[in-house]
Amino acid sequence: MPADPVRVALIQMACAPSTEENLDHAAGLVRQAARAGAELICLPELFRSQYFCQREDHALFALAEPIPGPSTARLSAVVREAKITLIASLFERRAPGLYHNTVAVLDHESTEPDNISGIYRKMHIPDDPLYYEKFYFAPGDLGFRAIPTSHGPLGALICWDQWFPEAARLTALAGAQSIFIPTAIGWHPSEKSEFGAAQYSAWKAIQRAHAIANGVFVCAVNRVGHEHGDVIHSNPDGSTTEVRGPGDHSTASGIEFWGGSFIADPFGRILAQASHNQEEIVTATLDPALVETTRQHWPFLRDRRIDAYSAITNRLLD
Amino acid sequence: MPADPVRVALIQMACAPSTEENLDHAAGLVRQAARAGAELICLPELFRSQYFCQREDHALFALAEPIPGPSTARLSAVVREAKITLIASLFERRAPGLYHNTVAVLDHESTEPDNISGIYRKMHIPDDPLYYEKFYFAPGDLGFRAIPTSHGPLGALICWDQWFPEAARLTALAGAQSIFIPTAIGWHPSEKSEFGAAQYSAWKAIQRAHAIANGVFVCAVNRVGHEHGDVIHSNPDGSTTEVRGPGDHSTASGIEFWGGSFIADPFGRILAQASHNQEEIVTATLDPALVETTRQHWPFLRDRRIDAYSAITNRLLD
Repeated sequence: MPADPVRVALIQMACAPSTEENLDHAAGLVRQAARAGAELICLPELFRSQYFCQREDHALFALAEPIPGPSTARLSAVVREAKITLIASLFERRAPGLYHNTVAVLDHESTEPDNISGIYRKMHIPDDPLYYEKFYFAPGDLGFRAIPTSHGPLGALICWDQWFPEAARLTALAGAQSIFIPTAIGWHPSEKSEFGAAQYSAWKAIQRAHAIANGVFVCAVNRVGHEHGDVIHSNPDGSTTEVRGPGDHSTASGIEFWGGSFIADPFGRILAQASHNQEEIVTATLDPALVETTRQHWPFLRDRRIDAYSAITNRLLD
Repeated sequence: MPADPVRVALIQMACAPSTEENLDHAAGLVRQAARAGAELICLPELFRSQYFCQREDHALFALAEPIPGPSTARLSAVVREAKITLIASLFERRAPGLYHNTVAVLDHESTEPDNISGIYRKMHIPDDPLYYEKFYFAPGDLGFRAIPTSHGPLGALICWDQWFPEAARLTALAGAQSIFIPTAIGWHPSEKSEFGAAQYSAWKAIQRAHAIANGVFVCAVNRVGHEHGDVIHSNPDGSTTEVRGPGDHSTASGIEFWGGSFIADPFGRILAQASHNQEEIVTATLDPALVETTRQHWPFLRDRRIDAYSAITNRLLD
């Protein structure tokens, strides 16, 4: 990793029903962050639409697109213009009937199509009330990776991955000194008063712990806003896919995405922190020198018992 | 694990130079906790002495003892009398010249010698300024385990182990629904003002993360007090080992152990929390039903990608 510190921005954004509107809005926020000095910018999970996985509906596969594809074409123009690196979470159509929840890393120096220097396919797929992702996304088959960029190799995980220490560990062992985690997570309105604070606290603690355990920067970026999963999408053939989300669309239904995006340094200190209820661009400077000094002072990588971990590939040791 | 909730006590104690005095003091605090209703009690790491690993001195191997041995004989009497389960951290002499940092779990229902239902030998051994443990302790060779007790299987890790997600994961996969972590960790006085808060915060965050990632209770118990590592020990042959700790014994030398013992539930919520500067008995009731409901609502064990974790046995993926 080059020794130069890099200015990072996380785009905590709200998403409208229109995919075209969200793509425009995201591109605008990315340009705004770049104008303010950001060199490495990360969008939240599946920012191009409202979080449609609140129900299982075959019509929504129309949102999927190849990578490279329409969204990366659009975003790569912004990347080249602003001379940045961009981490974009997309609904990937890999083959007919085979879809993934995928991150594409676009780098202005990359010579690959649409400046895509690498992709990561979400490895851990949730399936819980209002998060029916196993219906839409095949589990990733690329493993955990460090993706090369003009700012050195970086790691990407996606939402549910953030609860699995193995994911962060393997990403760090692959050479990533920062891990970006685009996310779409929020409160069920009916649970918020009883469990909301503990849920956000757990979400933050486990990601800070990934930073600490591995001596890496962790950048978690979430969306914000109360969504019911309404979608309006213009298809390439000129038709429109328009699907109203489930439920009664009252304030008691849907998901209240909790924002709260943050950047943690390699010892888990919070460098930047967003609110729960508004769009924000969260910025910090990541200095790779801090990775090495932190790992020297808390030398966990030195002392891992690699002779004693093989049973971790078991479901349970019963 | 039986369905009955269990009342737990962590003994956050200070340690004097005299090993005999510490053993008496620990036994007294254990009895006190049991009288107040505790059924499962955990002592801090190497509570029988001041933290002697502040320097490398061959004379200090005299503190090591077999397991079963003098300390477990003494403690098992307390265990039988109070009808409790006790987790005790000891300096184990396994063979001439082979020593371990070991936890013994004593259970009043165990029919093994000294009521020892199982041991765990510290797997991750630190070596850092004032924590010269690699000189004293061979790395554990028993792996990560669930130790049977009259309150169901429990896990034990020891201090430095707490920084390694693999240790907590394998202990949970082995069947432990609670993980006890006897610890001796503190601040270098010269670093405390700059790094102290972040160090304690990281220590707490990563252990809460073990609870969250695995859906288990985590009980971390630390010592308290400013020590220079002075030791006065009566040997079985009637001689006395008396070793003054290193440094000038000013307030700027030695280690200020940070206490701060805590109990976290399977979603990382803090059930009980000790201060940084005094002896305390930290208590909470652990309800095993909460393990199952937490894992149902946040089903991380369901979604682990056991097909994709084998590379975790590498030092680095370079």
